[in-house]
Amino acid sequence: MPAAIDFYFDFSSPYAYLSSFRIDELAARFGRTVTWRPYMMGAALKLSGRPISMNGSMDGTIAADYLRKDVERGARLDKRPFKWPPKFPVNGVHAGRLYYYLMTHDAEQAKPFARDIFASCFGLGLDISDAQTVIDVAAKHHITAAQAQLLLNDADIKEQLRAATDAALALGVFGSPFFIIDGESFWGNDRLWQVKRWLDWGGW
Amino acid sequence: MPAAIDFYFDFSSPYAYLSSFRIDELAARFGRTVTWRPYMMGAALKLSGRPISMNGSMDGTIAADYLRKDVERGARLDKRPFKWPPKFPVNGVHAGRLYYYLMTHDAEQAKPFARDIFASCFGLGLDISDAQTVIDVAAKHHITAAQAQLLLNDADIKEQLRAATDAALALGVFGSPFFIIDGESFWGNDRLWQVKRWLDWGGW
Repeated sequence: MPAAIDFYFDFSSPYAYLSSFRIDELAARFGRTVTWRPYMMGAALKLSGRPISMNGSMDGTIAADYLRKDVERGARLDKRPFKWPPKFPVNGVHAGRLYYYLMTHDAEQAKPFARDIFASCFGLGLDISDAQTVIDVAAKHHITAAQAQLLLNDADIKEQLRAATDAALALGVFGSPFFIIDGESFWGNDRLWQVKRWLDWGGW
Repeated sequence: MPAAIDFYFDFSSPYAYLSSFRIDELAARFGRTVTWRPYMMGAALKLSGRPISMNGSMDGTIAADYLRKDVERGARLDKRPFKWPPKFPVNGVHAGRLYYYLMTHDAEQAKPFARDIFASCFGLGLDISDAQTVIDVAAKHHITAAQAQLLLNDADIKEQLRAATDAALALGVFGSPFFIIDGESFWGNDRLWQVKRWLDWGGW
């Protein structure tokens, strides 16, 4: 049984949203499963040498203008619903915390929850920085609003996301999406074709 | 006759080196020519919101480590010779100046000269920041060493590269390689598959 592919992402990443539709199906063609590993990309930025603006602050630089158009063009090409949230970048911390709670306590709900978060953020254009948006999504995945409020402030849950982030950084993860296959790293939704080839050929 | 594709790049860019092997052939399949437009990417960085480290300074950040491996992996996949120059990043200013001189005075030599510069820099790993390296390449393209020395210090030639850079920035160019097809921008060697699709479909 070949090892799972690791799919690192930040819930705030529109490119990860696009990849989230494809990575599991792509992996399955090669007998692989995918472990979704949300992390806090902001923590990686200082280490990585990448600026915040590359990661979404639509601050009027020409790179930001390009990225905005590029995301929309990618969504059109893949025929995915796409709507920017009212403010961008957003903060994926609430979603990340509840994701790891589900991984530990109700693992079958974790990916569906993650997909619904992405759909809320980039399909419907809701603000996942707002805890209430995340709480509403969690309600569809066996977490009541009262429970979600507690979980979002739970020290152990917070620590779980922090530890996941530290573990990602230790492996050299710095972008979103970021894939690791048998130790080989691929950064970016536009590298899925290389991910596929790597799985197909077993490397090159 | 459809418009030429514009291929913007900095001679210091290993990703542009990889694209330089493919873009003309790709364009030709769709009845297009390619205008090569070297520019000084450094001038774009301040405007673009991108940091120097994204563009090659191998300064030990995890992004830089990834990019180094990614370039080498891309070269292996495409079966191109690849060798890092002794210091990286390099400075493409000398090469850019002689390129625009050739475009004006001996246009048929311009692309072959550019290809030879890329081959020197990333195929052989020579230092194109050193004017002598560029002068040696120019000698194969009808420019004597004495002439090259003069040209590299010629105010009009310098201005030509500056003007080309300004024109690129005015169009929103900020990376290398960067392609514009009928007003549509594509950034990155890993977007050549989208460039191809855009040419094939006429957009989406």
